[in-house]
Amino acid sequence: MKMHNFNSGPSILPDEVMEQAAAAIHDFNGIGLSILEIGHRTSWFGDVMTEARSLVKELMNIGNEHEVLFLHGGASTQFMQVPMNLLDSNETAAYVDNGIWGTKAVKEAKLFGNAIVVSSTKDRNHSYIAKDFSIPADAKYLHFTTNNTVEGTEWHHIPETNVPLVADMSSDIFSRPFDYSKFALIYAGAQKNMGAAGVNIVVVRKDILGIKRAIPAIMDYRNHIEAGSLLNTPPVFAVYVALLTMRWIKKEGGLVEMGKRAKERADLFYNTLNALPAFRPLVVEEDRSFMNATFTTAKPEMEDVFLGLCKQNGMVGVKGHRSVGGLRVSMYNALPLSSVQAITDLMKDFSEKHA
Amino acid sequence: MKMHNFNSGPSILPDEVMEQAAAAIHDFNGIGLSILEIGHRTSWFGDVMTEARSLVKELMNIGNEHEVLFLHGGASTQFMQVPMNLLDSNETAAYVDNGIWGTKAVKEAKLFGNAIVVSSTKDRNHSYIAKDFSIPADAKYLHFTTNNTVEGTEWHHIPETNVPLVADMSSDIFSRPFDYSKFALIYAGAQKNMGAAGVNIVVVRKDILGIKRAIPAIMDYRNHIEAGSLLNTPPVFAVYVALLTMRWIKKEGGLVEMGKRAKERADLFYNTLNALPAFRPLVVEEDRSFMNATFTTAKPEMEDVFLGLCKQNGMVGVKGHRSVGGLRVSMYNALPLSSVQAITDLMKDFSEKHA
Repeated sequence: MKMHNFNSGPSILPDEVMEQAAAAIHDFNGIGLSILEIGHRTSWFGDVMTEARSLVKELMNIGNEHEVLFLHGGASTQFMQVPMNLLDSNETAAYVDNGIWGTKAVKEAKLFGNAIVVSSTKDRNHSYIAKDFSIPADAKYLHFTTNNTVEGTEWHHIPETNVPLVADMSSDIFSRPFDYSKFALIYAGAQKNMGAAGVNIVVVRKDILGIKRAIPAIMDYRNHIEAGSLLNTPPVFAVYVALLTMRWIKKEGGLVEMGKRAKERADLFYNTLNALPAFRPLVVEEDRSFMNATFTTAKPEMEDVFLGLCKQNGMVGVKGHRSVGGLRVSMYNALPLSSVQAITDLMKDFSEKHA
Repeated sequence: MKMHNFNSGPSILPDEVMEQAAAAIHDFNGIGLSILEIGHRTSWFGDVMTEARSLVKELMNIGNEHEVLFLHGGASTQFMQVPMNLLDSNETAAYVDNGIWGTKAVKEAKLFGNAIVVSSTKDRNHSYIAKDFSIPADAKYLHFTTNNTVEGTEWHHIPETNVPLVADMSSDIFSRPFDYSKFALIYAGAQKNMGAAGVNIVVVRKDILGIKRAIPAIMDYRNHIEAGSLLNTPPVFAVYVALLTMRWIKKEGGLVEMGKRAKERADLFYNTLNALPAFRPLVVEEDRSFMNATFTTAKPEMEDVFLGLCKQNGMVGVKGHRSVGGLRVSMYNALPLSSVQAITDLMKDFSEKHA
């Protein structure tokens, strides 16, 4: 059976990335050794790291005022590492809380300085994005989550502010053209649009670094910059899968093409959702995520029936996050439009039978 | 050409582990999805994590007073995470400094409490292990590195002390039977004997946890224990490769068999080294590592000649660590005796021609 992978992350990757990753486990670039058994200080892996860092800059269209790092861990690590590196104990940072990940980020930041929530959408279960809020003029940075994987909301425009922007882009990085140079720091766990779990990408503008706090060596961005992301043994295979994925993005037409495909998938999905009485969207129309669509069945008791149908039809990952329930369809870069077509067809059938 | 992989880490893995890892990228357990694209909260991956944690306990022969965690990062992360979790700011911890990694570990611990070096072998370039030293009675723990990858020394017996033992076993974990229950905490980056880079194993006796310091959520062992190593998205593929490697170890005869093979490799290598005038060992006989043999050519100018011969014969990873120079042959669990035979044959030829 052809599977349709709507997992929220780890999630679908392009077929050719899988093939190349598997081939490199057998023999990396014809050297007679596996990617899993080469030293990280060999020129073989050095070339992987150099190309990966360079491709991030190329795809994002950013220059040398930014540095690209590949670090262990995921966004949860960055919730701690960002304020550790940027926020001194007597300084203030502004946080936007649009959902479960933003809430976690601000909680960690409070361990390091004066982290304040300047905008929260908790009043309506994070079903929208509040775009009007004020930021203290002395804020060291404004932290927000560009796409809320769990709740299904997304910032479709960058917030306008003079305060340095710090963004968790874990679930929509490389999904659209964006003025990435506007950000002081971007981080993303790789396991949605960029590869396999186990590596973080961090893009940081060098001039915001230089805190006085004593930082553990492995957490200090400056050490990683100086070492070219080879301060310690990096997650070699995960970096390689990220490289393969970025090569694929570039070859397919870069972020312009990714943005076009994301819109096609989202239009098909949400137009169908809007038209069907058996389903209810969870998010207000203008803030709906192009990556993660959250919704419910109109009758709560029908949710399991629909999930059963998904399973029968090889559609995985449709159950909502355990913290919010309901249903969720994730539509990352590698998801073909045909998978969205398949689930919207199923939704139509279901609606006709059960509405 | 048949390659002989003497890399110090990332390093050689069993052929069948590579085959199984590559197959799982194409299709994991016949489910129609790749290991790289399944959610970490699926029962598919839940079973992987459960078996991996259970196999660690089985191989180490430890009971329920210990917990097993798979965490992001490598030993460098644990240099920080161990004192963050165990050492309050008014407490003392004793550190053994037998080389580059021990030195780094104590440096990080000083950020958290009173970390003191109770034994250092720096006076003789860490070419031996000093076994007699005293530990303050109030020390929270004694930290040591069981095998010094860079310098080529290894503790062949566990230090005798009443102070809780904390060990960095990154480069000799699962290489021999050991009374693992004696340790309060063991950690190891996976990329030597246990799998691919990008995951740490931490084995911790629960009764030593309970510090009052506020710890970032992602760094707190207690959170990971409570969540069964699924607090955040784990490095899914690296955990799976570790599971495959542990299955292989068990199938081959467990740690008794691994210890037997390690001794056979080390005996062959060191007996050859002792007999050849063209080479010089770097470490005193009784403390030589079974995992990493460090040595030099008798005439310094011959080192590059020997490295050139290694390269011609498909032998990779023989150059010593950049911080100490010289030569190094790493002989981890997956290295066949035939590879040691090949390089000792080459050394004999070389010695006859150039001694």
